[in-house]
Amino acid sequence: MTERVAVVGAGQTRFGVLPSSPRALLREALGEALASVDRGLDPGRIDEGYLASLGFGGWQIGNPAALLAEALPHPGMPVLHVEDACASGGGGLRTAYQVLRGGSADLVVVAGLEKMSDNPPLRRRYWLGVSGETEFERLCGLTFAGVYALMAERYLRERAIGREVLGAVAVKNHENGALNPKAHFQKRITREDHENAPPVAEPLGLFDCCPVSDGAAAVVLARGSVARQLTDSPVWLEGFGGASDTLALAGRESLTSLAATRRAVREAFRQAPFEPRKVQLAEVHDCFTIAELLALEDLGLVPEGEGPAWTLEGRTGLTGELPVNASGGLKAKGHPLGATGVGQFVELFHQLRGEAGKRQVPEAERGLAHNIGGSGATCTVALLSR
Amino acid sequence: MTERVAVVGAGQTRFGVLPSSPRALLREALGEALASVDRGLDPGRIDEGYLASLGFGGWQIGNPAALLAEALPHPGMPVLHVEDACASGGGGLRTAYQVLRGGSADLVVVAGLEKMSDNPPLRRRYWLGVSGETEFERLCGLTFAGVYALMAERYLRERAIGREVLGAVAVKNHENGALNPKAHFQKRITREDHENAPPVAEPLGLFDCCPVSDGAAAVVLARGSVARQLTDSPVWLEGFGGASDTLALAGRESLTSLAATRRAVREAFRQAPFEPRKVQLAEVHDCFTIAELLALEDLGLVPEGEGPAWTLEGRTGLTGELPVNASGGLKAKGHPLGATGVGQFVELFHQLRGEAGKRQVPEAERGLAHNIGGSGATCTVALLSR
Repeated sequence: MTERVAVVGAGQTRFGVLPSSPRALLREALGEALASVDRGLDPGRIDEGYLASLGFGGWQIGNPAALLAEALPHPGMPVLHVEDACASGGGGLRTAYQVLRGGSADLVVVAGLEKMSDNPPLRRRYWLGVSGETEFERLCGLTFAGVYALMAERYLRERAIGREVLGAVAVKNHENGALNPKAHFQKRITREDHENAPPVAEPLGLFDCCPVSDGAAAVVLARGSVARQLTDSPVWLEGFGGASDTLALAGRESLTSLAATRRAVREAFRQAPFEPRKVQLAEVHDCFTIAELLALEDLGLVPEGEGPAWTLEGRTGLTGELPVNASGGLKAKGHPLGATGVGQFVELFHQLRGEAGKRQVPEAERGLAHNIGGSGATCTVALLSR
Repeated sequence: MTERVAVVGAGQTRFGVLPSSPRALLREALGEALASVDRGLDPGRIDEGYLASLGFGGWQIGNPAALLAEALPHPGMPVLHVEDACASGGGGLRTAYQVLRGGSADLVVVAGLEKMSDNPPLRRRYWLGVSGETEFERLCGLTFAGVYALMAERYLRERAIGREVLGAVAVKNHENGALNPKAHFQKRITREDHENAPPVAEPLGLFDCCPVSDGAAAVVLARGSVARQLTDSPVWLEGFGGASDTLALAGRESLTSLAATRRAVREAFRQAPFEPRKVQLAEVHDCFTIAELLALEDLGLVPEGEGPAWTLEGRTGLTGELPVNASGGLKAKGHPLGATGVGQFVELFHQLRGEAGKRQVPEAERGLAHNIGGSGATCTVALLSR
């Protein structure tokens, strides 16, 4: 007999280029998460802690999970560092969900942390590139943007459309980010800005790429009976799928669909009591604009083939029928790798509780979070409801 | 209602300086683990995979958990890379135990993998040193051997004994390693070899330090009902504790006792149906000889203060009343970081099934595995029975 699992607290630092140390970022996110638990929570009650990170500071600090017990603070708490490239946050959250469901713990904290700006630019490029495939991609000179550019090139050709659909994603996500005080970029851009931006890896230009961000995020998860003691407004986890794929694009059947996303979302809905069309808002992994377009159809949020039309017609905008990346997404909210997937939960926690301020999606009851590692070698999909 | 969990298969490569690639090492260990499942197992049935690694090859391959699905092979399987410094294996195994206990999965594979010899010597020293504390230890010039040397110095002074007790650990573990065809060092040493070895960090000499090894290990875990379908000789997990401590020695109350070990073992025995004195053999984390001495008393395997006497009198030897590190331990079997904790399970799987060949502990029914990260900032303790 498995029990339900809920998010009872969530917090995060602003994402961006931040002066704070990793320890300080972690403390800030954990402090905000604990403070958001309606009836308060003694950190000493938490049973397990997962730290999602690719290795802030280029692994200057080893065994980093121990920092989580120190920062909470909860000296002695069992901790584990988890990593699935940029899906590290989703991987940690899904594991927490499984452990809680079975009753091996009452309360688990999952934190994500990255301090990218401590790395010099070449080192940063390495940390991003290494998340793709190494032998047949990175060491042959393919950058991480280049990997997604191959997907974008193929997508635009197959659909016989132009770069303006990529621009529509960028403009929308910057618009949402401008309403998010925690976003890395809080400014609007125009379609002309997108069109005229310097190329990074054709057809992707500067505004097709998410920024390299520092940041931390933290979420407190509880099993059902405990969640009800801590808050009258838990956010329920209704399903959580995970999947993998080959590291290299060359091993895959398609360049314009991520099999790991399709597998993970199928598993998530197999567990959940509602269908894809009942999802009212989604945080999807838009490390590059093309990734949001792939996600719309892979996740079953829009009918096959209709991603571009939905995007160009504004149906995925904040006031559209399916707001996607109301937070600004990786594109504008920012992408501190390990903290990204945890940050998606922070957004959905506030949205589903009606606490999202200027970017609130009205009467949002059911949301989806989609987190990708590398170019789709790892993926998690979570379904949440209020 | 939680279910029991069992080990149903286990395998590993030889530990040592190996020419094989990370992918080849992983395939070999997984192949041996699958082949050891008595009634066979289709890898496609496995629900989850955890890859324990600190980062073989200095993170030349990112998102490494995806390699696990590829190597098993089980395309698409959800995978997670876990890391708790040298306790990564234990951390992955403990998470698998929790997930299986609650029924979120039927079958989980945990693999450990490290390819240390691909790193040049300075890089290797970095990978080891980074697992200790960074700001107050490593960057101040304290090596990882130096950290344990501080503990050893204090231990010998408090107990008013000489280095010969460290030598007794080294001689015993080399003796056991000589009986293990998978060990890095398969040769005996004498007390004189230990005494006359070049110093590394006083009072620790060359034979007080484990080697830097390559290797992979893999274990298949199943929940009780599934385990019974797959084998008539499952090895049951009776308890599994985890704990953490400060990264820096300076933050701790004692230099001669690891609080994380004490916390983890207390939790493990709280779950188990037997007492410490019922343990018949133990694989403990002897990255340095001093670590085995600390473990004996911290784990409650010998009475407080009696670790040196038990060791010098041979009571922890293969034919003694409590064989410790029958495999050779990290000292002689070798220490491929992430694979070490998984390798301890491989040893206990064979010992408890009576398959350990020349180093078989007669009629072994109950065993303990103890895995440490860094200088004790993370720790797991598992109790197994046949």
